[in-house]
Amino acid sequence: MIYFDNAATTGYKPPEVIQAVNYALTHLSANPGRSAHRQAIEGSLKMAETREKIAKLVGCPNPDNVVFSLNCTTALNQAILGSITRGCHIISSLSEHNSVLRPLFELKRRGIAEVSFLVPDKENKISPLDVQREIKRNTRMVVLGHISNVTGAEQEIEEIGKITKNNKLIFIVDGAQSVGYADVNMEKQNIDLLAFPAHKGLHGIMGLGCLCFKDEAKPTPILYGGTGTDSHLLTQPTTSPECFESGTQNLPAILGLNAAIDWYEKTKNSNAEKRKELAKMLYDGLHTLKKVTVLSCPNFKSGIVSFKIEGIDSMTAADILAEKYEIAVRSGLHCAPLIHKHLGTDKEGLVRASVSAENNRNEVITFLRAIKEISE
Amino acid sequence: MIYFDNAATTGYKPPEVIQAVNYALTHLSANPGRSAHRQAIEGSLKMAETREKIAKLVGCPNPDNVVFSLNCTTALNQAILGSITRGCHIISSLSEHNSVLRPLFELKRRGIAEVSFLVPDKENKISPLDVQREIKRNTRMVVLGHISNVTGAEQEIEEIGKITKNNKLIFIVDGAQSVGYADVNMEKQNIDLLAFPAHKGLHGIMGLGCLCFKDEAKPTPILYGGTGTDSHLLTQPTTSPECFESGTQNLPAILGLNAAIDWYEKTKNSNAEKRKELAKMLYDGLHTLKKVTVLSCPNFKSGIVSFKIEGIDSMTAADILAEKYEIAVRSGLHCAPLIHKHLGTDKEGLVRASVSAENNRNEVITFLRAIKEISE
Repeated sequence: MIYFDNAATTGYKPPEVIQAVNYALTHLSANPGRSAHRQAIEGSLKMAETREKIAKLVGCPNPDNVVFSLNCTTALNQAILGSITRGCHIISSLSEHNSVLRPLFELKRRGIAEVSFLVPDKENKISPLDVQREIKRNTRMVVLGHISNVTGAEQEIEEIGKITKNNKLIFIVDGAQSVGYADVNMEKQNIDLLAFPAHKGLHGIMGLGCLCFKDEAKPTPILYGGTGTDSHLLTQPTTSPECFESGTQNLPAILGLNAAIDWYEKTKNSNAEKRKELAKMLYDGLHTLKKVTVLSCPNFKSGIVSFKIEGIDSMTAADILAEKYEIAVRSGLHCAPLIHKHLGTDKEGLVRASVSAENNRNEVITFLRAIKEISE
Repeated sequence: MIYFDNAATTGYKPPEVIQAVNYALTHLSANPGRSAHRQAIEGSLKMAETREKIAKLVGCPNPDNVVFSLNCTTALNQAILGSITRGCHIISSLSEHNSVLRPLFELKRRGIAEVSFLVPDKENKISPLDVQREIKRNTRMVVLGHISNVTGAEQEIEEIGKITKNNKLIFIVDGAQSVGYADVNMEKQNIDLLAFPAHKGLHGIMGLGCLCFKDEAKPTPILYGGTGTDSHLLTQPTTSPECFESGTQNLPAILGLNAAIDWYEKTKNSNAEKRKELAKMLYDGLHTLKKVTVLSCPNFKSGIVSFKIEGIDSMTAADILAEKYEIAVRSGLHCAPLIHKHLGTDKEGLVRASVSAENNRNEVITFLRAIKEISE
């Protein structure tokens, strides 16, 4: 099978990651932070080490503000719902994934917040000037995806970060498609809260998301329970990371991410090169096909190329690719309805091919041949 | 090492479980329910099969109402916060874990709900009569742990279920220490919502909790995001299980639980026997030691035996056990502060030894000898 669905979950998991997960499964059954015996202590130390590595990776000033959750969506819920005040105004965009849109629309529906959705320009980018213009007296935060999961467009996070900083707004960044692919640095880019998953660009495993935040942007916990600390307290503790990590955490996936970050640091330059080469080859190749329209940007960092085929809706195209050619892509709306409406593709959707550095040129050639056949 | 901390996380993970997790890691990298290619479809089918097995295991009438989360705590948050109405009254007990207490105290603190905490009797049980007596005009639900993680006491769930049913109350059961150990059947026991983890009595892995509910007790989602379904909707979908499972789910742990349930069904009778034998041996042995007071109940289903040693606080005792004897137990308050206050052990805590069927008699003998030495 040719796996071109890496934007959903990267297909390749480095052996080091699998080994680390298995070490946790066979040697660290105990709950970290809950007991004082060897296994529990080793688990706690590994969690702390992983926080340190993540903090370094994304420029989070305080490793204790690296908190784990089930996935990037939960981390975004914690960031957004934990940072609002009643009656506040939020700036976001049409490019967002439902992991951002649905919490925002829930706040709108409940009358808690008003939300402005900025319209991307021709290059699918949000203009920093538009962000500046949209700021109102009650604006509290800006919530933006760094790289679109549909168009691959990369937002000018650093420019927008300057604006949020100058206006004392909270800047929440959805790094689902950028961490592991693009430069993400909370300090340099003035990001206050950053959410991302383990299983995409970093090649960790499913079941783990991270939220990193600056001390001054610490949100309020949205889930409550045992933290292994301050057990006498009937209210949720206030110390990070514990207050955001109620109940037993996903230790195997945390150890997997720890190993994944080491692998990422060793391979990032060559992998970025290879991913870019394959995505560009895909992009250029699709442009030569008459009945194919590419709607994604020539930003190949995250390996995303989205397109439509004249007369064939995206679901049908993906089904043919899967059944006839054994090629895995994603079709439909990619959980990002507003950008499809904006692009005029909300009826038929788009085919999204997303490559990783572990794909190869032959796979791209096979894919292009398949799309040529399907389109003709 | 002698691992007597099974009530936190069971130390033994069956080879079938490890294999199933590894199959997911190496063969099912794609997101279930998100794409239409082979890997994604296989993942979806495996998830559906796991829901079926869980529904059968706990008597949940509708497998689509078996929903996954990070852990039992998140499942309990979803159950409690998703079932409240403003101004309602909730009946709970002093026996509860912080996974129940902290969501309830948060509701109290915000003035959303009032909560009565029933006092356990001498056998650490909540009297069904007390539940009946506590019902008021605005009582909406009863939230109870089935088996206490401190005393091992088992509540009369079926009797209490009759009362909640007759009074049209929602009955939420925390099955953290009972699923895999005691009879749990939502239909027979009139449980409306049941939460439990994969990594305790069922011997699955960390990072997975389940919430099962009856159609008529469907809660409101508390987290929002992409579900792979109804992607055009800006509001959270309403169809279960999707509406409760925003973002990428922990597929490796779900496959692990699938295999764990098969293993459980094959081994449950002999394992229950063995666990009971070991826990009873522990309980009886500790009773012969002069300076030791056992405070847990002679209910050995979940393998919990909690005790204090005259003149030594529980943390110190656990440290000596870990360092000198390489024995893992849990000390302190076990995230259940009110029951410790009730027992008068909120200062020094208790030592909790919790055995599983994979422990053996020699380990119990070594443990008893160690406690004898420490106490003298």
